[in-house]
Amino acid sequence: MSYYQMNENLSIDYLMKQGIFSETSNLTSREVGDGNLNLVFIVKDTLSGTSVVLKQALPYVRVVGEGWPLSVERTIFEANALEIHNRIVPNLVPKLLHRDDELALIVMEDLSHLELMRYGMMKMEKHPKFAEHISTFLADTLFYTSDMHMSSEEKKRLVAKFINVELCKITEDLVFTDPYYDADRNNINPRLKPYLEEVFWKKTELWLETSKLKYKFLTEAQSLIHGDLHTGSIFAGEEETKIFDAEFAFMGPAAFDVGKIIGNIFINYVSWSGKDEDVEKIQDYRSYLIETVKRLHRLFEKKFIENWKKDAQDISARVEGYRDQFMRNLFIDTIGYCGVVMIRRVHGLAHNIDVDGIENLEKRRDVQVKLLELGEILIMNRHQFNNIEEVTDMLRENIEGAKNL
Amino acid sequence: MSYYQMNENLSIDYLMKQGIFSETSNLTSREVGDGNLNLVFIVKDTLSGTSVVLKQALPYVRVVGEGWPLSVERTIFEANALEIHNRIVPNLVPKLLHRDDELALIVMEDLSHLELMRYGMMKMEKHPKFAEHISTFLADTLFYTSDMHMSSEEKKRLVAKFINVELCKITEDLVFTDPYYDADRNNINPRLKPYLEEVFWKKTELWLETSKLKYKFLTEAQSLIHGDLHTGSIFAGEEETKIFDAEFAFMGPAAFDVGKIIGNIFINYVSWSGKDEDVEKIQDYRSYLIETVKRLHRLFEKKFIENWKKDAQDISARVEGYRDQFMRNLFIDTIGYCGVVMIRRVHGLAHNIDVDGIENLEKRRDVQVKLLELGEILIMNRHQFNNIEEVTDMLRENIEGAKNL
Ligand SMILES: Nc1ncnc2c1ncn2[C@@H]1O[C@H](COP(=O)(O)OP(=O)(O)OP(=O)(O)O)[C@@H](O)[C@H]1O
Ligand SMILES: Nc1ncnc2c1ncn2[C@@H]1O[C@H](COP(=O)(O)OP(=O)(O)OP(=O)(O)O)[C@@H](O)[C@H]1O
Ligand SMILES: [Mg+2]
Ligand SMILES: [Mg+2]
Repeated sequence: MSYYQMNENLSIDYLMKQGIFSETSNLTSREVGDGNLNLVFIVKDTLSGTSVVLKQALPYVRVVGEGWPLSVERTIFEANALEIHNRIVPNLVPKLLHRDDELALIVMEDLSHLELMRYGMMKMEKHPKFAEHISTFLADTLFYTSDMHMSSEEKKRLVAKFINVELCKITEDLVFTDPYYDADRNNINPRLKPYLEEVFWKKTELWLETSKLKYKFLTEAQSLIHGDLHTGSIFAGEEETKIFDAEFAFMGPAAFDVGKIIGNIFINYVSWSGKDEDVEKIQDYRSYLIETVKRLHRLFEKKFIENWKKDAQDISARVEGYRDQFMRNLFIDTIGYCGVVMIRRVHGLAHNIDVDGIENLEKRRDVQVKLLELGEILIMNRHQFNNIEEVTDMLRENIEGAKNL
Repeated sequence: MSYYQMNENLSIDYLMKQGIFSETSNLTSREVGDGNLNLVFIVKDTLSGTSVVLKQALPYVRVVGEGWPLSVERTIFEANALEIHNRIVPNLVPKLLHRDDELALIVMEDLSHLELMRYGMMKMEKHPKFAEHISTFLADTLFYTSDMHMSSEEKKRLVAKFINVELCKITEDLVFTDPYYDADRNNINPRLKPYLEEVFWKKTELWLETSKLKYKFLTEAQSLIHGDLHTGSIFAGEEETKIFDAEFAFMGPAAFDVGKIIGNIFINYVSWSGKDEDVEKIQDYRSYLIETVKRLHRLFEKKFIENWKKDAQDISARVEGYRDQFMRNLFIDTIGYCGVVMIRRVHGLAHNIDVDGIENLEKRRDVQVKLLELGEILIMNRHQFNNIEEVTDMLRENIEGAKNL
């Protein structure tokens, strides 16, 4: 069946026709998409209480409109990635129930009992299992789709399957390029503009280092990465963590996923400087965030190495010293990408509500300048940091003025 | 038409049916393939004197036989690469006249008026235009198929088109892996075996460095590389140079092509130590080889940079300092791959006749040990060399005991 755009009624008809609900069910549908790109319907059977989510791509960027066309084939990448995630880390992603590549849609498990991690973090919610879960997600998806584990052939088949031209291009432009000059698509706090013009856009060494990281993003086919692993792509609860929205997936640098999630936690950490909140509460929450990042990264490395010891297939991956240098390079790039994603959320096209929620534009600017400075420190010094603790110490010193609390 | 294997008569029938010769022609056909993999027929019209070459893949490795199956799809990669070479460097490759993917064959310009460069070099022939030509081939094919020039989309389409699973795997195994341990497929001079066992196979640091270069070969989708650029893939005459046999082409590290051709010239350079030739002639020829490598590499860098200045499209490629660090990394990897390909030709599956032509096994062993030592120096010190002159000085000092002649 050729492509047509869903609405609430059509989503019900479609799911009934697919036999995803029993014939006696009584369905309601609600469009809940809050993202930049796609339609998301929650369809529920009011009798049994069961529900599913139907996500459909539109032939353009949703927030911009038809003026920015975008092929609906992005759903194919999301479905392909979700299939692989369903195999490798079934408990950490929505179950994929159905895919329809012509209609550019997927039907998946409804996770609305969980909250988007970004919103939880804006309310200072803690997610005690997050570090444990996300480190498994990262260690397993990134290791088991790499040349260390896969045969040379399987790996190359994945490269071909995930030639994700359009969404990679979005990242190449919006993350690695536009923020470094006065690009049209940037979305700039007017109070920040003078700083960008007088200071930030003159930093050619920073642009150079970011361009090196961009080049790796363009050329390094290392692992199947999620590609958009910020706190808005994660549902987090007390006991559960679910990673979704993998439409940016492709065979790229593993460090991009690790750096992106850490960078987004750092953004939240810094954002509190612009908010009217009880100082002690902020201190407490920031300590929690720092601990979370440290645990997340320590556990990630531990699990990745365990996977390697257990399941590395390539004889070269077992040569003495090989794993150590690999982990070291992965760390350096992680810190680099962490800095890059912090910067792009300041004045690139897409922002984080963590910071844009600060209504006073001067206060917002001050937080934004901090983020730009921190991003720069991370990128420029990525070869100097020895471990994640040195990174979080730097952050803490810079923002809270205290090294160890 | 489904696949059938050509012979001399069938090759004539086929070409007549395709209308490649006029109906009044009188064709003769001769199989001349001396390679490891494929059938090569030269088909000639004795009346007009015109001729073409028909190359067909066999469903197995020709030198080994049906015991080592290999898909005939390799011809598709060769044809695809040759099409691109016909566009980018039409004067430096055979003209592609016809392709038939089902029969796994290509028909191309007959270059038999030229001699294989390897054979010429074994007779101390000089090729005055070679450095000029090969540097153009390298600079143009490697630059114009990279992210510096291509759009992000075009480049990724090339990656997908050149998922060359089987032939990459051959390189991964035979070049980067087998020579570093006592692998079954190795082809070892019995006089060399003790050295391998007592010395070479204990060099874990060397294996580590080679494994890093292997990892780049596995993951770095930089440029469309020829993939098998040794002196047996080049026809060279006084005035002409033609590069052929691109069946190993894929989107890989640019440095692999540059390092491979230099490494193969170095092998010839070293091989004279095992030959009964007039000392002065050897000295003279070696000077020529050193000059050739220096010129080739200097010209390559010069032309690559000129291409960059003229035709770099990506704004990031124009950031201050970017090109310099790129050229530096390309050089380091080139020296590394140069060392790797020298080593693999000593005791891996495929040898160079330059060295295997030394019939006395002790003499051959001595040359082989030299090659292994030089390969190691290149790989282990690749970050220390500042330019190609330092590399050729090292070689000269090591083999001739004199730094500057
Ligand atoms: N499986 C699910 N269960 C419940 N709600 C979901 C599910 N998937 C998506 N949603 C809701 O829909 C919103 C948008 O989903 P998603 O982020 O996948 O869409 P998108 O258009 O790709 O957005 P983005 O701009 O982040 O790329 C989510 O923030 C979430 O609220
Ligand atoms: N265009 C041509 N004109 C004349 N002779 C050719 C041509 N192409 C190939 N040959 C001859 O056929 C031989 C084998 O060709 P080629 O190297 O392409 O085959 P192959 O089976 O792929 O070998 P290899 O083991 O090097 O991969 C060449 O060495 C050359 O002598
Ligand atoms: Mg999305
Ligand atoms: Mg060949």
